[in-house]
This record gives sequence, C-alpha cells and structure tokens, in this order.
Amino acid sequence: MTELAARTGVAIHLATKDELVVTNTYGQQVVDTWALAADDVSRFASASHTWMSTGRLTVRLGDELVDTTRTPMLAIVGDTSGGRHDLLIPSCDVVRYRQLGVPGYHDNCRDNYFAALSAADIEPLPVVPQPLNLFMRVPVAADGSIGIEPPVAGPGAQVRLRALQDVVVVLSACPQDIAPTNGLGATPRPVEYDVVRAP
Amino acid sequence: MTELAARTGVAIHLATKDELVVTNTYGQQVVDTWALAADDVSRFASASHTWMSTGRLTVRLGDELVDTTRTPMLAIVGDTSGGRHDLLIPSCDVVRYRQLGVPGYHDNCRDNYFAALSAADIEPLPVVPQPLNLFMRVPVAADGSIGIEPPVAGPGAQVRLRALQDVVVVLSACPQDIAPTNGLGATPRPVEYDVVRAP
Repeated sequence: MTELAARTGVAIHLATKDELVVTNTYGQQVVDTWALAADDVSRFASASHTWMSTGRLTVRLGDELVDTTRTPMLAIVGDTSGGRHDLLIPSCDVVRYRQLGVPGYHDNCRDNYFAALSAADIEPLPVVPQPLNLFMRVPVAADGSIGIEPPVAGPGAQVRLRALQDVVVVLSACPQDIAPTNGLGATPRPVEYDVVRAP
Repeated sequence: MTELAARTGVAIHLATKDELVVTNTYGQQVVDTWALAADDVSRFASASHTWMSTGRLTVRLGDELVDTTRTPMLAIVGDTSGGRHDLLIPSCDVVRYRQLGVPGYHDNCRDNYFAALSAADIEPLPVVPQPLNLFMRVPVAADGSIGIEPPVAGPGAQVRLRALQDVVVVLSACPQDIAPTNGLGATPRPVEYDVVRAP
C-alpha cells in the first residue's frame, strides 16, 4: 500500500478495469476523489449526471458514476466503510477556511487537485469538478437542509473503485480540521491506496 | 418584453444591480439559467457552493447564488411562480434524448448554452456549469431519490434576478418534450424576459 500523506493529493492513472483500493487507515478521514478521462480533461465524473443515472442523490456500493457525457466512468465495487459518501459538497478551498476564521493559508482539497494534476504533467481546466467525497457524511433533511457529520468509517475501512474507462483519478486527503468533516476535533490523517491492475 | 423562442437560448449582459425578469408566458415552461462572470468564464454561479452558503438544496426567493469562489453572484429578488426551482438536474443534451428514445438530433439546453454564448462572442470553457433550472420541480424523497414533476408555475409567473456582479446570464427555454419537465405531454413554449437596468 502507498501512503497518501495527510493534507495532500495524488493523481493516479487507471486503465479500463484497473481497480483502486482506498484505505481509511485511521478511520473518519474524508478523501475527495475525482475522475477525469485520460485523453480529455473536459470530460469527468459528474455528480449531477450520476444522480440522473441512479435516480437518487445518495451514492453506494454497486453504483456507477457517469461522466459529463453520461457514460459510466467509475464503479464502486467494494465498500467496508458503512457506505456513507457524498456527492453534494464542493471541495474545501482557501475562501472556505477564511469563512471558518482561518486568517492565512490553509491546505485545501482544491489546491491539492491542481497540485496533484500538475505533478502528473496534466493541465486541467481552471475549474474543479464536484468531487466524490469518500467517507463524508452529509445528511439531507426532509426540508432539504444539509449538514456535515463525523464519518462512520472505522480504521481500515476500504472502498474499491473500478475504472470503466481510461481515467486519471485524483485523491485528496481532506485537510479540514475546523468543521467536523473528518470527525469532531480531528487531526487530518494520512490514508493509503493500492492500484490493482486488470489481468 | 423580449421573446425567447421555444427551444432556444440567449446570453444577456447584466451589470451589477441590473435585474432580469423572466416571464413564464404560457406557464410550466422550464428555463435553464446560468451566470458567468463577465470577465472570467471560469467563474460561474455554482449549485454546490450555493448549498454550502444557504445550508440547503432548495432554492427560493431571497437566496443568493454564489459563484465558484463563494462570492454572491445572482439573487432571486422576486418570484410569483410558486417558488419551485431546481439546482440538481444537469442540462438536457443529445445523449439524454437518445436515452429517452429519440434517434436523431433533438434541441437541447446544452447546445443552447454554447450557441447563445457564441452568438454573444463569448468563448466558454468546454464544460456546462450546473444550471439553475427556473420553474423546474424536482422533489427529493427521504431516501434521497429524485423525480421530475410538472411545474406549478402558471401563465405569467415571473422570477426576478438581480446581478450582484457584472455577469453574463444565459437562458434556455428547455426543449424537453418527453419527460414531464415542462408539463405532461407539453409542447415546449417561448418565454419572455426584460432587463431592468440599475438607475
């Protein structure tokens, strides 16, 4: 297993049928996750197109995330985390931390997204797609109001993602330490990942 | 009032404090609506950032849509439509109509978005932001499942939008005539709009 250091991101190439196992080593650590077509950064896994495809806002084991052309891109083929993930909340960014009272710079998933792609020599569009927030718990109330609650994912919980196209997956170990995204009073932790190449 | 022909789109420049009144002339006609910063097509009104700002997935009179930098961009300052609008469903496109059984080309909001901006000499990024679907009714059930139901907006219903920045607003009179987006068995209809310049 490869460690993804706390508060950082990484970009990983997956060929069709390759699988990526993300391990929540210490538990409760949210991982912002994106998938982009390997040959076209303007085509990426899309929350809203996925909702139209599955017919619901929740995301769970067996679901296929579709891309902006409504083509299946990434499937959730394994999940020992309790199955709570989020497709609604945008990545944290410097503005968000300023709203939360942080005066200076704070590591954030938005910057991790761009840094990870840059490190992989990929030039993305200057927009951040809506991420799949693995392990993030966002209840939606009957009146449409949303909240952010500590994850239920325990230490060692794993999610297994299968590429349904040739993609670049970006992971960011979310550095949120003010909202309860990664647990109440949590220190952002590393996670681990493995690539299982298709035979 | 200016007519926006059925099944077509238009791009409209609004300076800060200008207002745009959209009239649902015949009732039940959904209007996909986007707002982009006048000087930066990579910054646009964002559904997910707006949910973080308002704390709920619904959108209603008095709300401010924020952009991808979490800055207020467009406010809903008037609404006689019954107040049902949507921020969840992506624009219809050729792929969607193919899924619905249309073999050839079908007018769609995605193509209207690009055509309207092109006609206004604006070159957008090759991605379609999540629209504000005015008058569109998308109930979210307790289990997260979503549906599309006929609009409640009656003939003459109006929504008034105020620009909180210098923006380009794109409107598309949705050409959906298969799903009940614009009413059961509806023929897509024109709508009307007026720009009220700030004094």
